Amino acid sequence: MAVHSAILRFRTRGHGHIVDLTEGVASVVEAAGSPQAIACVAARGSTVAVTTMEYEPGGIHDLTEALERLVPVEGDYAHNRLNHDTNAYAHMRAAIIGPSETIPVVEGRLALGTWQQLVLLDFDDRERDRTVNVQVVW
Amino acid sequence: MAVHSAILRFRTRGHGHIVDLTEGVASVVEAAGSPQAIACVAARGSTVAVTTMEYEPGGIHDLTEALERLVPVEGDYAHNRLNHDTNAYAHMRAAIIGPSETIPVVEGRLALGTWQQLVLLDFDDRERDRTVNVQVVW
Amino acid sequence: MAVHSAILRFRTRGHGHIVDLTEGVASVVEAAGSPQAIACVAARGSTVAVTTMEYEPGGIHDLTEALERLVPVEGDYAHNRLNHDTNAYAHMRAAIIGPSETIPVVEGRLALGTWQQLVLLDFDDRERDRTVNVQVVW
Repeated sequence: MAVHSAILRFRTRGHGHIVDLTEGVASVVEAAGSPQAIACVAARGSTVAVTTMEYEPGGIHDLTEALERLVPVEGDYAHNRLNHDTNAYAHMRAAIIGPSETIPVVEGRLALGTWQQLVLLDFDDRERDRTVNVQVVW
Repeated sequence: MAVHSAILRFRTRGHGHIVDLTEGVASVVEAAGSPQAIACVAARGSTVAVTTMEYEPGGIHDLTEALERLVPVEGDYAHNRLNHDTNAYAHMRAAIIGPSETIPVVEGRLALGTWQQLVLLDFDDRERDRTVNVQVVW
Repeated sequence: MAVHSAILRFRTRGHGHIVDLTEGVASVVEAAGSPQAIACVAARGSTVAVTTMEYEPGGIHDLTEALERLVPVEGDYAHNRLNHDTNAYAHMRAAIIGPSETIPVVEGRLALGTWQQLVLLDFDDRERDRTVNVQVVW
């Protein structure tokens, strides 16, 4: 048994910027070298989320629009009023989607579908330096 | 320590078909044979999700209706326009709910509530053969 | 390798009561004593969810309002009609957010952001005794 630990770092644009994590996580899984394992992928921060999606321009556009419709950037939000802040919407979107996914590693590879990528969604309303922790455990 | 790895396969109807995974995952946990562990349950594909719910006709109906209200099947979606596709809504629903849950195994059993089942939600707009990977790690 | 297993217990007020789990989970991680690991945090029950958020009054208020707008307490819900129940909304919210998060443990500590707390959301419409299972695996 072992834990193979790695950190992926990204400069994001915020405002819902979606970053494809798949290649980075796959490299960590390869370095871990175990044929059977799990890969826990988690973003640090309360305005950022991790999920999977087909990473293509249409889907990116649609998800962005849907989240704007469900939890709009503009609104009479207590987080903004109480903290003199502007990113309340980002906190809500991140909490609903959640910060982590854990993906099986089978025959040494992430058990994702052909059109399924691991992604980071940065909802904050400015550029951010983001940290994603990857733990491969077997 | 060990990883016990299994694959569950299902033929789904798509269109939000919800499949109860609990018995299948419980069998994998039993075969693993460890009293203390975690069970990672993840669906392959970008139009399918995993979560827990009380698997009963009322709740299935309500969740289906709520998701149709929040992310309708019909809409002017870029994924459909750009890829000559019809399942943009399925991609968005799957990304919001997410593809994986990891459930503790305590005293050899999944730590679920009495009325809490692990479920697969297949949002695609046609029948699909689906693969769920289960990794029990301890 | 080992699994360190613990149970956190809470009396909640229901009605969307959000409980900060961070200190409790951090204590379990410390007791586990492994510098590199993962911490799986999962709530038992089909009307309760686990995620992360900045645990502050504004954000708590906003998330509560957003969930009421997205999945209202009142509605013509089949779960309530068929089961003579009143908490259909709670089941839907819990299924959408999901019951578990798995957080890396790095250098002996939970890899959370400074303003990011692990939380339990109890959506049921009455007081509940809730159980959260924490498994630290390495």
